[in-house]
Amino acid sequence: MASSQEEVTLLGATGSPFVCRVHIALKLKGVEYKYVEENLRNKSELLLKSNPVHKKVPVFIHNEKPIAESLVIVEYIDETWKNNPILPSDPYQRALARFWSKFIDDKVFGAAWKSVFTADEKEREKNVEEAIEALQFLENEIKDKKFFGGEEIGLVDIAAVYIAFWVPMVQEIAGLELFTSEKFPKLHNWSQEFLNHPIVKESLPPRDPVFSFFKGLYESLFGSK
Amino acid sequence: MASSQEEVTLLGATGSPFVCRVHIALKLKGVEYKYVEENLRNKSELLLKSNPVHKKVPVFIHNEKPIAESLVIVEYIDETWKNNPILPSDPYQRALARFWSKFIDDKVFGAAWKSVFTADEKEREKNVEEAIEALQFLENEIKDKKFFGGEEIGLVDIAAVYIAFWVPMVQEIAGLELFTSEKFPKLHNWSQEFLNHPIVKESLPPRDPVFSFFKGLYESLFGSK
Repeated sequence: MASSQEEVTLLGATGSPFVCRVHIALKLKGVEYKYVEENLRNKSELLLKSNPVHKKVPVFIHNEKPIAESLVIVEYIDETWKNNPILPSDPYQRALARFWSKFIDDKVFGAAWKSVFTADEKEREKNVEEAIEALQFLENEIKDKKFFGGEEIGLVDIAAVYIAFWVPMVQEIAGLELFTSEKFPKLHNWSQEFLNHPIVKESLPPRDPVFSFFKGLYESLFGSK
Repeated sequence: MASSQEEVTLLGATGSPFVCRVHIALKLKGVEYKYVEENLRNKSELLLKSNPVHKKVPVFIHNEKPIAESLVIVEYIDETWKNNPILPSDPYQRALARFWSKFIDDKVFGAAWKSVFTADEKEREKNVEEAIEALQFLENEIKDKKFFGGEEIGLVDIAAVYIAFWVPMVQEIAGLELFTSEKFPKLHNWSQEFLNHPIVKESLPPRDPVFSFFKGLYESLFGSK
């Protein structure tokens, strides 16, 4: 391959919200890329070599240079392809976008996941409380904006794809109410707007197999309802 | 105060490695700032108002606009004051710097802390193993560079102040060997170089009271040796 040609590869797994973030960022920028589905039970040499620290997807490889960690990848994409900016240009607004993206990773992901997939009842209740508390902060933050990024999708929206697409699925599987339109009307409106955005639509995995996958995981842990 | 004048305030606590990161960044840039020591048992109104999500230090306030999360603050400082860059200019090198800083937060902090301050023996051993494994990755990464940032201190060096200054203290208190010159000669060389850097020297808290504080904490948990 000519060295002047861009070589852009994403190693991923269909059901991963972290991988989905990278799909959205690349499609927003209109970057052509090769997607490689990893078998996470039998990871490729390329994955292990490209992310020896975590051995996880997503891994983004640009002209043979690998990057791991979804938010790090999204910032890299934003700095490399300048059209359709994902981060705001103002340093203070950039700091807030980084703060809320990190908040989603630190406070929403684990709590929402453990609200569903934890066996211990007390532990589960604690996580439900924490997830709801975290979502309340986001409800207050979105206010009446169309997206967290304003009129266009930005870093926080991309980080929050987990809340829009994954949380409703896993709470349905567990018969839980974490994120509902009654509890969080503004965040719910945001999620509808976001899921209907053409770029997001084409970046999401197909719902049915992902739902079945998580339902299977849930039933393997707790039996079927 | 005239609105054209810069108003730069850091809310912190002396013993915090996260606060120390911000001191280093500000001093590297030569930014004049007001430091306010918080009493963490009786947090100020300003702290609670400025960081309602986490209610933690550091909080950085620039012209009345507050930012929380130490690495977010350091990036903001780097974007606001352009002299003595903390992040590299090349997008790939920036991604690597962000990756390793996040690695330190995710893989070193908790493991090193729990290696010392966990009562459960098994849990403690597991964390010792994880801390050593994480430090090995950093040993491999520093190679023969003076700093992680190359010839000058960069984001990863600032993130790693915990390893240079705090880990040696808490391991001494617990009689543990996590980070030693035998185990990690290159990382140890780095830590000496880093701690002797004039900017770092004037940013570090005085060792004795911080040592006494952590020793007191350790003895309150496990009794004195």
